[in-house]
Amino acid sequence: MQIFKGWKEFKAKPQAEKFQYFSHDKTIHHLIYAQQLTREFTGELFALADKIRDMAKTKKGMDSLQTLASDKRAMLFFVQPSTRTFLSFLNACHILGIKTSEIRDTSTSSEIKGESSEDTIRTFSSYVDLIIVRHAEEGFAEKSAWVLNQSGRPIPIINGGSGKDEHPTQALLDLYTINRSLGKIDSKKIAMVGDLKRGRTIRSLSQLLANYKGVEIFFAAPEQYQMKDDILEYLKKRGVPFSLTSDFESVIPKSDVIYCTRIQDEYDENGESKKIDYAKFHFEERHLAHLKKDAIIMHPFPRRLEIATAVDNDSRAKYWEQARNGMWIRAALMLKVLGREP
Amino acid sequence: MQIFKGWKEFKAKPQAEKFQYFSHDKTIHHLIYAQQLTREFTGELFALADKIRDMAKTKKGMDSLQTLASDKRAMLFFVQPSTRTFLSFLNACHILGIKTSEIRDTSTSSEIKGESSEDTIRTFSSYVDLIIVRHAEEGFAEKSAWVLNQSGRPIPIINGGSGKDEHPTQALLDLYTINRSLGKIDSKKIAMVGDLKRGRTIRSLSQLLANYKGVEIFFAAPEQYQMKDDILEYLKKRGVPFSLTSDFESVIPKSDVIYCTRIQDEYDENGESKKIDYAKFHFEERHLAHLKKDAIIMHPFPRRLEIATAVDNDSRAKYWEQARNGMWIRAALMLKVLGREP
Amino acid sequence: MQIFKGWKEFKAKPQAEKFQYFSHDKTIHHLIYAQQLTREFTGELFALADKIRDMAKTKKGMDSLQTLASDKRAMLFFVQPSTRTFLSFLNACHILGIKTSEIRDTSTSSEIKGESSEDTIRTFSSYVDLIIVRHAEEGFAEKSAWVLNQSGRPIPIINGGSGKDEHPTQALLDLYTINRSLGKIDSKKIAMVGDLKRGRTIRSLSQLLANYKGVEIFFAAPEQYQMKDDILEYLKKRGVPFSLTSDFESVIPKSDVIYCTRIQDEYDENGESKKIDYAKFHFEERHLAHLKKDAIIMHPFPRRLEIATAVDNDSRAKYWEQARNGMWIRAALMLKVLGREP
Repeated sequence: MQIFKGWKEFKAKPQAEKFQYFSHDKTIHHLIYAQQLTREFTGELFALADKIRDMAKTKKGMDSLQTLASDKRAMLFFVQPSTRTFLSFLNACHILGIKTSEIRDTSTSSEIKGESSEDTIRTFSSYVDLIIVRHAEEGFAEKSAWVLNQSGRPIPIINGGSGKDEHPTQALLDLYTINRSLGKIDSKKIAMVGDLKRGRTIRSLSQLLANYKGVEIFFAAPEQYQMKDDILEYLKKRGVPFSLTSDFESVIPKSDVIYCTRIQDEYDENGESKKIDYAKFHFEERHLAHLKKDAIIMHPFPRRLEIATAVDNDSRAKYWEQARNGMWIRAALMLKVLGREP
Repeated sequence: MQIFKGWKEFKAKPQAEKFQYFSHDKTIHHLIYAQQLTREFTGELFALADKIRDMAKTKKGMDSLQTLASDKRAMLFFVQPSTRTFLSFLNACHILGIKTSEIRDTSTSSEIKGESSEDTIRTFSSYVDLIIVRHAEEGFAEKSAWVLNQSGRPIPIINGGSGKDEHPTQALLDLYTINRSLGKIDSKKIAMVGDLKRGRTIRSLSQLLANYKGVEIFFAAPEQYQMKDDILEYLKKRGVPFSLTSDFESVIPKSDVIYCTRIQDEYDENGESKKIDYAKFHFEERHLAHLKKDAIIMHPFPRRLEIATAVDNDSRAKYWEQARNGMWIRAALMLKVLGREP
Repeated sequence: MQIFKGWKEFKAKPQAEKFQYFSHDKTIHHLIYAQQLTREFTGELFALADKIRDMAKTKKGMDSLQTLASDKRAMLFFVQPSTRTFLSFLNACHILGIKTSEIRDTSTSSEIKGESSEDTIRTFSSYVDLIIVRHAEEGFAEKSAWVLNQSGRPIPIINGGSGKDEHPTQALLDLYTINRSLGKIDSKKIAMVGDLKRGRTIRSLSQLLANYKGVEIFFAAPEQYQMKDDILEYLKKRGVPFSLTSDFESVIPKSDVIYCTRIQDEYDENGESKKIDYAKFHFEERHLAHLKKDAIIMHPFPRRLEIATAVDNDSRAKYWEQARNGMWIRAALMLKVLGREP
């Protein structure tokens, strides 16, 4: 397919230099990278999400919310398998009265007739006012934003998870969950547990935590799957204290947040993760006794055995709320990029 | 996957003991089994469906109907092939202003990452106010209701067809069609025709007919596919007269309802149903002459050759209305479980 | 499957004789063939589409548009791969407040249980007020209209592309794009470029252009893929001047419209189109200099290399607007067949 002029040069730029290109009127227009989420912008979204869920408690409030963006149409272009993120965005649209089109399977698409992805995204943009993209191809969301900025109809792009690296709205809902459950993020001690090397969720969240004061991070992982150096370097530079351990149990009593993750074995090359004793990184019922009274337990889902189901009904288990928080904070984000705050 | 505590014990209970667990404020909260549909509750639904379709006759009425549950969001979790039931529920949602999410293909789902079905259903429940489930796994809808009852967000589950045995809303629309076409169900003579052994529709309907007075049932089937003893025992116990025959033509003149069904050859083990002369259980154009003037002909669809297309435009052919009745009665059911009757 | 009485006889009739069967109250009820689109009806749609897009410029106008058909439900029965036409219709429905059901994959459908297509379409019609059909089977939309006309619920059918030959709403949006970009269609000189033999878009458009005065057509194609004689005969009979050439560049300076199309190699029997030098029928950046100042460039999409991306941002490139025009004109069409003009 044809390569559009200028894309390669843009792609090669350092991330931070790109952010102004994704902005409009000093606020985020396209959300592509978690790093675009400043403390200030994130704080505004927290307040807006709180307001939305407050309105949503009554039928009158819900009916009123549905008028906020009732004239808008969004496309959910989700060609990488995903249920959670998809449903969360879809229902956030429903809450705001946004009408939705779904593309979930490229086998029903003209792409099979050999169209370029640039043409596809620009055509999609003809019909709607917002596109949420989830795509296996790294950089696809960024390219989409770039293509639309060249066009006469530069509608916002929200990255719903693109390739291995970026999933900014997951990081956003994680921050929102900590803030909402604990009242603030500053000064909290956060344990990240599991396959930290390959989990994009954890990588983004770790970076964003650097925007808050007095935060400390415990990375609890099997040696082979410890957090990578690039993130550790970043934290050092930002002055965020952290420690590495393979002894998960040791961090439980001192943490305000226990963030568990599954093993990312879809990235295994040779089934190598099966050799790991991952059970040592499971949160079991017996661990509840060692956990602070006001700490919280999080998980981005899907879960396998990382958290025992016996823990589910403990009031500190926040992973179900975490999923639902994603819906509210995404609604807030969409109102922001559409310029439709109440 | 992990088994939740208590599920196995619950599952093993006699059906009738479970019903109160599926109720809330003395009305149905989760509809899992056809047997939950009492004469009283069913009668209320009939009246409500009649009211809805009456309102739906004008644009003003339709716009008004759409406000009744405009703040509600439903999920159609249909991972077993189905078009009719799916469309019927979906359009019933549209009539009531309910916003809908569809999951029709687990290949686009996180389930492939190894999540338990309990986690899936509980996650889905985070985003919506009602889940309609159609699943190949027997007992899946029941398990879903059980899981949500354990959670902090026990939204209603409606069984849209689960495994081989249960499809309560089909039985409901069948009763509604008889009641609406004939004015009442009491005292009617109903012929059930075809593969009665393996058709869940017929099994459920037969049981529910026992709630009405003076009903008589004729089971007309090939010997190998006659109604099973469990249902016959049940009818005996409830005092419902019935007879068995393999001579379909003999029951036509004396029936108020002819309920035809196709051969359920998807349950064949060795193509054994191909040896049956099923043509003897087809309703042909020539049979119209022998049918009572005010009798009706029903079919749950899809149809193959069970009813000749020449019969379609006879005023006694009610199978198209039967399909549409499903939409109205499902709308009534959803208003009930959501507590939103006008 | 059973064949319905009368269908074969109807199918065999000359096209023009069928049109009154697809009409109601002197206007189009079912849109099956491009040839149904008279100059008068098309002109009414142009005006209505202009009015809709004018209203759509404000939130108040959009909210008002959504009340026009808020009580209506449409089904998009798209079992042949298509994204563009699908999204265009879907979003047109959203603009008008029409609720939508989608069938995009027959593997989730009862059709696999052996139902006839007549039963399928009649069942679908039970739930909705309008069906838009895209199907690989030639004549499927026509058959659907015929079946519903036999039934007690003859809701409108719109052909969204059926088989190789008919795609009337594509022809409609092409005409609308010419009319909107150039102010009128009368007297315009139109170059059709590419695989004219096998492109249904071009065939329909050529026929409809005969409804306008003083139009002239240049068919620029590889010899093997020139326009077929049936269309040429039709144009002769209607008095439309045209010429055939394999020298694309020669027609550029004298055209008001350049309509480029891709090679339809899905209809190749043996990869024969690969032997063609199709590059001679590409519109390249250098051609812009030879194009009239107020001419326009069109393409029905998907595009491969027929138009260089360097041309995309030239003000004469109208193919993106063309896609979006499809949404507006389809909204106008649906209002017409539903009898809901503002």
